[in-house]
Amino acid sequence: MYSGGYTGKVLRVDLTHQTFSEEELPAETARDFIGGAGFTIKYLFDEVPADCDPLGPLNKLIYACGPFTGTRIPCASRMAVNAKSPLTGAVGVAMTGGHFPVELKRAGYDVLIVEGVAEKPTYLWIKNGQVHFRSAKDLWGLATSDCQQVIKDELKDQNIRVSCIGPAGEKLARLACIVNERRVAGRRGLGAVMGSKNLKAIALRGDQQMAIADQEVFKAARKRMLDAMKNSPVLYSEFAHVGTSGNVDNCTALGIFPAKNWTATGAYDYPEKIGMDAVATRGVGRTACAECPVACSQMRLAQTAPYTGIMTEGPEYETLYSFGGVTGVDNPDAIIAADRAADEFGLDSMSTGVTIAFAMELFERGILTTDDTDGLDLRFGNHEAMVKLVGMMGEREGLGDLLADGVKLAAEKIGKGSEKYALHVKGLELPAYDVRGAKAHGLGYATSYTGADHNKGYAIQEIFGLPFPYPVDRFAVEGKGALTMWNQDARTAVGDCPTMCIFMLDTSVAPFLFENTADLMRGTTGLDLSPDDVQCVGERVNNLAKVFNTLAGLTRADDDLPERVKTEPIPEGPAKGQRLTQADLDQMLDEYYEARGWTPDGVPTRAKLEELRLGVAADKLGLV
Amino acid sequence: MYSGGYTGKVLRVDLTHQTFSEEELPAETARDFIGGAGFTIKYLFDEVPADCDPLGPLNKLIYACGPFTGTRIPCASRMAVNAKSPLTGAVGVAMTGGHFPVELKRAGYDVLIVEGVAEKPTYLWIKNGQVHFRSAKDLWGLATSDCQQVIKDELKDQNIRVSCIGPAGEKLARLACIVNERRVAGRRGLGAVMGSKNLKAIALRGDQQMAIADQEVFKAARKRMLDAMKNSPVLYSEFAHVGTSGNVDNCTALGIFPAKNWTATGAYDYPEKIGMDAVATRGVGRTACAECPVACSQMRLAQTAPYTGIMTEGPEYETLYSFGGVTGVDNPDAIIAADRAADEFGLDSMSTGVTIAFAMELFERGILTTDDTDGLDLRFGNHEAMVKLVGMMGEREGLGDLLADGVKLAAEKIGKGSEKYALHVKGLELPAYDVRGAKAHGLGYATSYTGADHNKGYAIQEIFGLPFPYPVDRFAVEGKGALTMWNQDARTAVGDCPTMCIFMLDTSVAPFLFENTADLMRGTTGLDLSPDDVQCVGERVNNLAKVFNTLAGLTRADDDLPERVKTEPIPEGPAKGQRLTQADLDQMLDEYYEARGWTPDGVPTRAKLEELRLGVAADKLGLV
Repeated sequence: MYSGGYTGKVLRVDLTHQTFSEEELPAETARDFIGGAGFTIKYLFDEVPADCDPLGPLNKLIYACGPFTGTRIPCASRMAVNAKSPLTGAVGVAMTGGHFPVELKRAGYDVLIVEGVAEKPTYLWIKNGQVHFRSAKDLWGLATSDCQQVIKDELKDQNIRVSCIGPAGEKLARLACIVNERRVAGRRGLGAVMGSKNLKAIALRGDQQMAIADQEVFKAARKRMLDAMKNSPVLYSEFAHVGTSGNVDNCTALGIFPAKNWTATGAYDYPEKIGMDAVATRGVGRTACAECPVACSQMRLAQTAPYTGIMTEGPEYETLYSFGGVTGVDNPDAIIAADRAADEFGLDSMSTGVTIAFAMELFERGILTTDDTDGLDLRFGNHEAMVKLVGMMGEREGLGDLLADGVKLAAEKIGKGSEKYALHVKGLELPAYDVRGAKAHGLGYATSYTGADHNKGYAIQEIFGLPFPYPVDRFAVEGKGALTMWNQDARTAVGDCPTMCIFMLDTSVAPFLFENTADLMRGTTGLDLSPDDVQCVGERVNNLAKVFNTLAGLTRADDDLPERVKTEPIPEGPAKGQRLTQADLDQMLDEYYEARGWTPDGVPTRAKLEELRLGVAADKLGLV
Repeated sequence: MYSGGYTGKVLRVDLTHQTFSEEELPAETARDFIGGAGFTIKYLFDEVPADCDPLGPLNKLIYACGPFTGTRIPCASRMAVNAKSPLTGAVGVAMTGGHFPVELKRAGYDVLIVEGVAEKPTYLWIKNGQVHFRSAKDLWGLATSDCQQVIKDELKDQNIRVSCIGPAGEKLARLACIVNERRVAGRRGLGAVMGSKNLKAIALRGDQQMAIADQEVFKAARKRMLDAMKNSPVLYSEFAHVGTSGNVDNCTALGIFPAKNWTATGAYDYPEKIGMDAVATRGVGRTACAECPVACSQMRLAQTAPYTGIMTEGPEYETLYSFGGVTGVDNPDAIIAADRAADEFGLDSMSTGVTIAFAMELFERGILTTDDTDGLDLRFGNHEAMVKLVGMMGEREGLGDLLADGVKLAAEKIGKGSEKYALHVKGLELPAYDVRGAKAHGLGYATSYTGADHNKGYAIQEIFGLPFPYPVDRFAVEGKGALTMWNQDARTAVGDCPTMCIFMLDTSVAPFLFENTADLMRGTTGLDLSPDDVQCVGERVNNLAKVFNTLAGLTRADDDLPERVKTEPIPEGPAKGQRLTQADLDQMLDEYYEARGWTPDGVPTRAKLEELRLGVAADKLGLV
């Protein structure tokens, strides 16, 4: 049935009953959703009640690779992990790379669905068709790198790949992520979902090779892609050497690198302290996901006390923001230490930093005092307090317990007007682009089905001047609705589903984005999708996710931005004075919903859903 | 030539010229020295000038397995690492277990000799006869677990085994050890020797199988050994579950668990806080060296802030002393954290703790003040200061720079009478047995060719009442000379040479100690050694090591004990009032030298050396 690319198999594991079964991947699922994020959203929609408790037994943890994962297509070693998010209550999909995704394919599966709750701490050991339910009693409490090594030692196989949680996930911190190697499926609290199932880790080993449906088509498409990568203006010349750290410099130049909980965007000169050149001096080599010729992951080593000797993979741009700019910390070694600590405790580094910045603003304003902070002097810029707080959040100790669920819940508990300083959309903390100076980014944060997410519809046109599908003015409000839809659908269809690395796509194959995926699909799987079909998969996935979120209770009111963003202008720098008011947002939302063919309230229509072969979603919504 | 056990090959690597060569292992070396420590001492004696600078280019780093390493003999996955010690100026041999030793044999070598100095940071990648000199530029500064993982990633082979140094070794700390997996070749600054050669790591992979000379003899001997192990009173019933932590309880009961830099032995009730039951509650599984059915290595996880989530392999008894009793720290989680930090920075956990205890006593006495300690309140028992100081020593920061070379050198630099509180023999910090209440242990510390070493001639008769070769009174001075010689020769011959785990030997095959090794030798290698021959190997190795030390300038005056031990009685507890005076030591030394057939000055005679086929050593000493 599947001549290539897909294994055609879905592994379903029931933790409650300690059973497992294999199912066939339906052909129409492959055709309509391609893989990765698309598969996980399809299964989430079909199987998880949208109104369920994300940390309850009805939620499911769904892993999915795409048809490109594990082939020799460069930059395709990625997978999606999904569940209803305990942080946002919405679709929680996260992408991760490294080596685990390929191992999942080699073990024989396109999709892995974990359901139920184990009675005791458990880990899964999956090898070529066999699933073993093993006690994680001795793994409980372990940091993520220790956990991975101990499992390899215990199973006497160093080639095993492991996806696991740290203490944060075990303790149901809503900022907890899932870690494989030094990479994470982050942001939306999937680590807490794993923890709620008493599942510490999934260990994999397989030796199945990916079949290729049409070698000639495959080779030609792959070669065109590799050639385009060679011509990328940044892939080998910049990303390979400094990762994404150059964006500190770039976004500072654009005046949109957010500082001190977004009170000081544009006011500080961070590049000198924590920008590309500053962190490059800490570089100690790099590493790559499977089959990636770029190897953008930089290893960096702290060089000053008390952080000397701490290494991390990163920090990437977002972490330089979250443990740097937004907290006012300008010590690159502290950022390295905090990044490593977040990885080891299994905390999302972005949300963790933004949450600490939130606490810092409350401290500066006297809403939190040293009585609340276990004595920590939480002023902006106190790097030692920041690093210590990461560990406290990872273990839910003291103030860390309050903060471990993110700014939204923390603000609800603290009260005293603290909500005003909680920077999030749908509960997800804001990424590193001050959207007041990049409006489509703002609309993206507001409308992404995952909350404030820079990766679901990244407006690369605004940040890097990319002229596809057309050039835009980043300060403009008009025209951002259709653009954001295009960005969201494109990134979903060519990145998160097949699965492919966005860095590579943005910087090299942008001129033939959908064609590239269509050709690789034909070569890999034999499925004959047109470029338009590919783009349509993106639209389908975004619609289905939106329906899930609507069923979960989210409305237009949730497609929002934080009060500060809507009421205060950027105070300094190149984007000084830029605003993104409620009226701006409303205008963009109207445009966006219209472009999507949704109602003015932001609900997909039956016509649109049926056009996308999603009639069942319309039924579930009760649409006439 | 070698029908089994041995690979018969010595790999010589020249870092200066980046060349390597293979040599045959001489048959008489195998016969006279068996392997392991014996081999390394033979090569050290033959090739390294005894008067050379240990951190200079003439020193060599010598790894050696034994004929049992890599066979199916249980508990034989060990190797010796040797060089002239920068801490003691004497023979620096250290034993380590884990998996690296077996991989060295599988890669094809009994012995690995590393000589010269690399121009730039380098690591060796050795695979089945090929040696690659690779840049360690990106590994320099990395913690030991990171270093091991990064090498596996870089060489794209997770099955590689790595022996490496941490920042401490790079910075030539004389307390630096060499780490493989979570195990160390510790105590005598071998990490600094490796660092002085600009050698960060040795990575190995091999697939050669060990041949067995006589399967029937081998199987019978192996079975007898396994049966004896089953009958051990402690191996499976205690060590498998709590490692060596029970010795805190045992030695406290004997009144010889040293506390607060040996000022308070017997005065504190440590078992309740950091003894067997206390650390057992932190247990998170265990791990084993290759082919070990016992798996005594306990993994333990810290459970209280600020250490929550830190895991270590250990702490073993000695570490419960060094980061516990001797520093006055009674927080088991701090001990776990300090142990892990020592492993990661590549510091010997024993000497590091004793050196911190030394600094604590100086602080209590006002010889060091907060001006000297970078503000640390270094009173006995301050666990946070202790853990912080481990990192400072590992990176040679602040006070850590002064302490990183151990108590002897630190006392010389500090002056002000601090020598009195520096507890060491020949520069090596004292282990965890207060020898005032276990006199043979005292003689062992004084006479071991490696400095104050509890492993070279452990008087198990005194601590566990073992009646082999005969029962003794631990408080008595008389009769300890011959006993110590027997202990030293036995442990060397049956443990450090073949190579075999001392824990197993002491607790199970003691009644047929030499016979066991002789039979296994015959089965494994075909070499026909009598039990007496085996014992004689121990005597030969101890004599050759003593000649090296004599040539290095050490005399009877160096076979000494610290002033405190000789002048102050044990103040409290079951061994209260016990002394080990200069007169006691002299009496034991006289007895010991006589038993050894050495001169009253402690120099081997030509007659003794020739009897041991060590005439060449007599020549080198200029003996007539």
